[in-house]
Amino acid sequence: MTESIQERLYPDLPCFGCGHGNDRGLKLRSYPADGYVTAQFTPWLEHDNGLGFLNGGIISTVLDCHSAAAVMLEAERQGWPPLPGVPLSYVTAGLDVRYLRPAPLKETVELRAVVTSATEPQITADVELIWDGKVRATAAALWKRWRPR
Amino acid sequence: MTESIQERLYPDLPCFGCGHGNDRGLKLRSYPADGYVTAQFTPWLEHDNGLGFLNGGIISTVLDCHSAAAVMLEAERQGWPPLPGVPLSYVTAGLDVRYLRPAPLKETVELRAVVTSATEPQITADVELIWDGKVRATAAALWKRWRPR
Repeated sequence: MTESIQERLYPDLPCFGCGHGNDRGLKLRSYPADGYVTAQFTPWLEHDNGLGFLNGGIISTVLDCHSAAAVMLEAERQGWPPLPGVPLSYVTAGLDVRYLRPAPLKETVELRAVVTSATEPQITADVELIWDGKVRATAAALWKRWRPR
Repeated sequence: MTESIQERLYPDLPCFGCGHGNDRGLKLRSYPADGYVTAQFTPWLEHDNGLGFLNGGIISTVLDCHSAAAVMLEAERQGWPPLPGVPLSYVTAGLDVRYLRPAPLKETVELRAVVTSATEPQITADVELIWDGKVRATAAALWKRWRPR
């Protein structure tokens, strides 16, 4: 398989969800597909929601971080690189998550993200968590251009 | 200090964010205050967002789980207990998070939640993450009555 978006664009990032420079994080790997960005995520035993399913906070984390991969890929394609002194070109400003059905704790789930609008100040993406052919959770993610202050 | 809402109402829950039966989780502790529910949360080093601030997914997790404490307390006050065979009376159906300002990775932050509407089928809550006198993130949480299937 080709190198993941995270490992190609920000290999040393210490982000909890998608940083491959974070030994204790989730190390999400996302890949370009035909019209969308895809990832597989296998939960850890501690990612329980208290009822034996995947925790809503962890679902939010992987939806957010997977949308990041789609947004950073779009920014690269548009020629909007990170500004000097920062590793990422955009940061999340909003994440509207809908939990539609329980997601499993002990199975690998799929994530799919599509960029829905892109201007240099902000990029939006829709992202889904899917298992067994059904969408378990969705999010609308709003990302804004990050400037160091 | 009095016993936390989590330890009083669901002491053995294995939830990643607020379960005290989860050895590897965040073990959030929330307390009733005057008109709201409060908690303090101290991030772990791995909760980085990649830029040296608190990760958005972890922010979502503690906003979700802290709103849970307010919702479960409201459900107890209203007399809407968990149904037979489940440990929780409600589950999250939606979480709309707004990231307003960076939140620190190495300081303790405060969480505040207020129940904004409550009927037996669904309860809503507004929840904030505050540090240094400023709101860093907010969420509107929608919880629905949980029935085992």
